[in-house]
Parts: sequence; C-alpha cells; structure tokens
Amino acid sequence: MTYKGFSKLPTLLVGQSGGATAVINASLVGVIEVARDSGQFGRVLGARNGIEGLLAERFILLHDQEPELLQVIRVTPSAALGTGRHKLKEGDLDRALAIMRQHGITAFVYIGGNDSADTAHRLAIRAAETGQELRVAAVPKTIDNDLPETDHCPGYGSIARYLANAVRDATYDSIASPQLHAVKFVEVMGRDAGWVAASGVLGFLSDERDLEPLVLLPERPPADVEVVLAAVERDLQTRGWSVVVVPETLRTADGRHLGGNEPDYIDGFGHPYYPSTGAALTRLVSQRLEVRARYDKPGTAARMSISLASAVDQDEAYALGAGAVERIVAGESGIVTILRRTGDDPYACVVDAVPIERVANTVRRLPDAFIAGDGFGVTDAFRRYATPLLGPEPFPRYGRFDEGRQGM
Amino acid sequence: MTYKGFSKLPTLLVGQSGGATAVINASLVGVIEVARDSGQFGRVLGARNGIEGLLAERFILLHDQEPELLQVIRVTPSAALGTGRHKLKEGDLDRALAIMRQHGITAFVYIGGNDSADTAHRLAIRAAETGQELRVAAVPKTIDNDLPETDHCPGYGSIARYLANAVRDATYDSIASPQLHAVKFVEVMGRDAGWVAASGVLGFLSDERDLEPLVLLPERPPADVEVVLAAVERDLQTRGWSVVVVPETLRTADGRHLGGNEPDYIDGFGHPYYPSTGAALTRLVSQRLEVRARYDKPGTAARMSISLASAVDQDEAYALGAGAVERIVAGESGIVTILRRTGDDPYACVVDAVPIERVANTVRRLPDAFIAGDGFGVTDAFRRYATPLLGPEPFPRYGRFDEGRQGM
Repeated sequence: MTYKGFSKLPTLLVGQSGGATAVINASLVGVIEVARDSGQFGRVLGARNGIEGLLAERFILLHDQEPELLQVIRVTPSAALGTGRHKLKEGDLDRALAIMRQHGITAFVYIGGNDSADTAHRLAIRAAETGQELRVAAVPKTIDNDLPETDHCPGYGSIARYLANAVRDATYDSIASPQLHAVKFVEVMGRDAGWVAASGVLGFLSDERDLEPLVLLPERPPADVEVVLAAVERDLQTRGWSVVVVPETLRTADGRHLGGNEPDYIDGFGHPYYPSTGAALTRLVSQRLEVRARYDKPGTAARMSISLASAVDQDEAYALGAGAVERIVAGESGIVTILRRTGDDPYACVVDAVPIERVANTVRRLPDAFIAGDGFGVTDAFRRYATPLLGPEPFPRYGRFDEGRQGM
Repeated sequence: MTYKGFSKLPTLLVGQSGGATAVINASLVGVIEVARDSGQFGRVLGARNGIEGLLAERFILLHDQEPELLQVIRVTPSAALGTGRHKLKEGDLDRALAIMRQHGITAFVYIGGNDSADTAHRLAIRAAETGQELRVAAVPKTIDNDLPETDHCPGYGSIARYLANAVRDATYDSIASPQLHAVKFVEVMGRDAGWVAASGVLGFLSDERDLEPLVLLPERPPADVEVVLAAVERDLQTRGWSVVVVPETLRTADGRHLGGNEPDYIDGFGHPYYPSTGAALTRLVSQRLEVRARYDKPGTAARMSISLASAVDQDEAYALGAGAVERIVAGESGIVTILRRTGDDPYACVVDAVPIERVANTVRRLPDAFIAGDGFGVTDAFRRYATPLLGPEPFPRYGRFDEGRQGM
C-alpha cells in the first residue's frame, strides 16, 4: 500500500463486516456508484476487512474502478473488500477518527449486521463529541434476518431460496429411498432466531404440503433430544420418512446445547466446540430407531450461492447501499437504511432509514404469529411474509405419480 | 394395488435403483416415451422401489400417464418410482421371473449403478437358462461416475456442476473472512473413486487458478491425517486460507478410516459408523493450528439439485433410457447403454451399448493422467474431460479488486 499524500477533496470510506453473503457486494456497488455519481466526493475508498483495515490503513481506491468490473462484483458472492469481525478496543475509536481526519474521510458507510451497526454508531457519537466532521451510515446485511426495524435483511432472501430448494430436494430423496435414509437432518445456520430454519419449509408448493419437514426453532426450544426423537417417530409412523431442519447452534429450553453439553473439543484459541446438532441427532436416531439416518450441512455455500440467489434480494441490497449514500449526501448521519414493506400482493418495499441505535445490539426473533401451533413448523402468515423475498419463480414444478393409480 | 387380470399384450417393466439423482427421472421418461411410441408394448409398468417392488408386485401403470406430467417428472429430481437397494437372495431370481411371466412382462429395463447392472445381468442369464422370453437392458446412473465402459455416468455432470459452484463459493467466503474460518473442508460423496471430489476444482476459471482447493482423492490416499495437516499449513503460509475437498468415506493408504478407525457408534442394524472426515479434520485443525476451521457437507442436495443440474446431463440421461428401449425393440438383450465420446471441441457423445457383464461389479477409478503430481489436485486433462459434462455456462463470472491497486 502506498499513500501518496493528503487529498483536499472529501472522501467517502466504505467497509464490509461479518459473514459474507451472496448480496453484500451488491450493497457495496450501490454505495460506490451513488457516491461516484453524486459529485460530492473526490474519492471513494474501501477499507479492507472492515474496521480492522481502517485501523491498519489498508485502503483500496474504488471510485475509478472499471464500471464493467463493478457490474461483475455486484453479482459476485462473498465480500470484495474482505470482512472483519474486530471488536473495538480501548482507544480504537479515537485512532479510527484520527486516521479518517488524516485521509480526509468525512463520510463512512458500514455494511454489516448489528455488531457493525454498533461500531458505526459509536464512531458517529465519538465524532460528534469531538467535533470531527463525519457522517456515518450503516447498511444492514445478515442472512440471520434478525435485525429490528427493517422488514427483512439483505442476504436472507437468497439463503432462504437456497435452503427452500435444498430441503425440498433432500425430502424428495428420502421419499424415493427411505431404505437409504428414512430420517434426514438438514443442519442450517441462523444464530438466536429461527428465520433461516423456517425458510426450509418454503419450497413446498400448495400441492406438496404433505411433504413439509419438521423445523426446530430457537423460539420453541425442545426440552431435550427425546422430544425430537418422538416427533421423528410420529413422522415415520405416518409417512415412512422424516426430514428435520435443525439450527446448528440449537439449545434446549433450559439452555443446554442440543447436540450435547460437553464440549467436543477446545480449539487453539481456547474456545469450546459443542457437538453438531445434526450429527448428534443422526447418531441418536441411528442408535435408537431401526432406520438409517444422515444429515446434510449445506454450510457456507448456502449463504454464498449466486446461482440460487434471489433477484429481489440482489436489487434490495443494492438499493440499501445506494440509499445510505443518498442520505449522507442529504446531510443525514447516524442512520441505518432499512426496508419498509408497502405491499404484499404485489410485493413492494421502499428504502427508508432510522437512527442506528434502534438497530444496534438488538435481535428480532420469529413472532408467535409465524410459528405453527405444534412448534415444529410455520404458519401461512410466515409464508406470505417470506415467499416474495425469494424472488420470481424460486422453485421449479416437481411431479409425482399418483399413488392411487397403482396396479393394472 | 389392484390386479385386473392378465394382459395378452407384451409388457415392458422399468425400475430405478440406488441413490436418487437430479437426472434419473429423465432416463425413466426416456424409457416410457420410447416404449409407448414404439407400438411394440401393450403396457409399460413401473416397479416401485426397484427389484423390491417387482418381488412384491407393487406396480404402477406408466404408458397412459399424462404427457404433461411426464414432462414435469423428467425434470423432477429424485426417483419417481422410488429406488431400491435389495440384495438378491436365494430364490429371488426365479420368483421375479415367475411374476414377470404372470404379468406378461417380456422386457425389463433397470436404471441404476453397478449393483443394479448385476441384478439385471443375473435376471437375463436365468431367463435364458430357463427359456423364458425376457429382454433385459440396464441404464447407467451414478453420481460416482465409477462405471467402466461408458465415457461418464448420468448424474455426474449435475453433481459436478453443483459442487464446482459450492466449492468456489466456499472459497470466496474463506478469502473474504479468513478470521471467521481460514480453513474449510467441503465433505463430498463418492465411494471408492475420486470423480466427485475432483469436480470441486472445476469452478475456478482460468484467471482463478490461484484459488483452487486441495482435493483429497481415494486414488492417492494420505498416509494419515498429519499429511493433510501439513498440506493445510503450507496453504495457510502461502495464501492465508485453505479449502480442502474431502470424500466422506476417505481412508488412509493402509485402509483405516481417515476420520478415525474407532466406530463413532453402532446403528440399530448393527452397522458401525465412523467419524466424518470433515468433522475429524476440522477438529484436528482447530486444536493444532491457531486458526478457525469449519466444514460444509452439501449432502443429498448436491446430487438432487435440479436448479443447478447440467442440461447436458439431463439430455444424456434421457437418451440412455430411450436408447435402452430402442435396443430391446431391435431384439437385443443383456446390454447396458453407454456414452461414447466422439468429440471434445465441440463436445459430443453418442449412445452405444455393451454387454452388461462388462459393467456389473467393476469400479473405474480416476486414471493417473487426471491426477496432479502432488496428489492434491487434478490435471488439465481432467478439466478437458469433465468440464463439458457440466453443460453450457456452468459458472457465472466472479470479480475481484486488484490487490495491486491498494492505497491512494
């Protein structure tokens, strides 16, 4: 990195944070293009790996990148600047502000989840306290869909589309070959809220409702593994197979790790790792029931697949990045852009903004109205909420032979 | 099931066997449509769950299914008849032949892997021995791509396309966020041959060769986990992250399970289950190196995704089913349809057939010419072989900012 002297022109800095997604680069390109075209900024800089890159002055020039490259990066999954997960330490805020002063940075856009919103918020407050000119905006991004205020979060529609297809495909596999794996767990991401797990139900069209999986939700934590085993057994008795969507970090009602409360191992940093819920439940079913079981764990590909990304999600992610810069140009600061739903049929959302503190450090969980009475599924209200986020024609039609037409 | 009397017309029976795939229904519809249109068969019957359904006389009428339904089933993943994995027992052959006689079945097409080819072969031999009129053809199907004689197997191009995308996406994720998971294992299917694992390399375009993953191949089994750990460490030193594609059943050079040779548990049937290679390697890296690691396990969705299926694979699967019936109509029996490559640029294959015994119970492994010198990757010869099977435009273009343009 070479720094070639101070620029007199105001500079906008943008960074990306947290887990990468299929659409976080769409937000980035929204920021770059609107900032470049606004005529208000001499430079647009990107911080490598979020606040970490800012503190280390690892910057990249963005406003003069080839337009063709930006169009490709807009649809490249992952995070083109690299993401960070740096926790602010004593003195970091003042150091960050000093570096911004030195580089003529008067605007900062941070794309990320609620940790990043918190970082942006603290920077905005500290700048105001010290009288430094700095406008700050956050752009939401999280597959977890657990930020408050916004109707939904960019990244969610795409992972939901991916998992809805994956769970449907896994289910058709179990139906066709119950002797190979009558019971199948699909282990998915999603921290303390069940949005991601719930999306596993969405792939089943109106004539496929009999095929819907069981879904385990952090909002309805099972008392213990026996509750899950009993639900699987009921499924086996009624339809001969069972597919269960299970969050990788699910805990029981009294807070124990569902996969087992003894750490599987301790990593090189001293962090405990608990048994995978999918692996633990597969083992339990295999040992206790006379059926074969397995688990799928789509993992990072699920939140990164551009081939299965939602076009609605991609467009909204761009609009939220673009909207953040528009607000900054209009003189606002300390805000986060959000999506406000204006219609269900046809679906429509507009970009709005609220003060960052309304989003930072708060988690939105699945409301009761979205959770089925037995706690193992979702309601039609959830389907109406979530399905439009998956974009147009998210699922191909599947066919089944009529069971009633057997024989000759 | 109701049986409404013996039909005087010759009947063709078709069944599906083994693990379901994205394209096994394309082969089924190829069989049904050609049989129906040939005018040679009064009926086309499907056996539910393969030979198991034949022995239990669980049949379904196929020749008068709605053409529109057949078009949807052609692109429905899984196996519309259900698959079986029944091992032939004493007396099964004669019972199967008696049932065929009773139902006027004079032609049998079995779609599956080499176990199914063996079953079809034994039926053909026994029918010939006893003078029963029965023409038998097998249609290959296996994501494992390990059948001899055929250039490749239907199902392989689609899982290869899926995994090539998944590994590329997982890699972009690790590059963007090495602090979240610098080391990532992608655990894939594929029995005793490395075709499926090798496909994980195919998503990297010519300007992305620096991003290719390490691939562990059964054809180059590591001596032990230390060899894998050393390769990961080299990767971390040279590029700061490491992505490793690892077969779920990989063994060491001396035949031990790579994930650990002590069974993790015994299932309800008494079968031992060994630790997952992905989980075991993740644990090892986490404990021994000061980096975060995780594993993805795309599982059944990888071999079932129609959204990411290869159009070439879908067309070839149909053609192999159609070709089997054409051979039967032409008077042949005891054959398996295969693909013979007639051109690389442009890619072209034709349907041919060979005696079943040349395919049954034989496994084709990756040839040396397809394996990189260090044993952790593939050669350009493999890329030339495999890439056309993934269909047109299997990968979107991805963009990266030029690392050299950092600073201002």
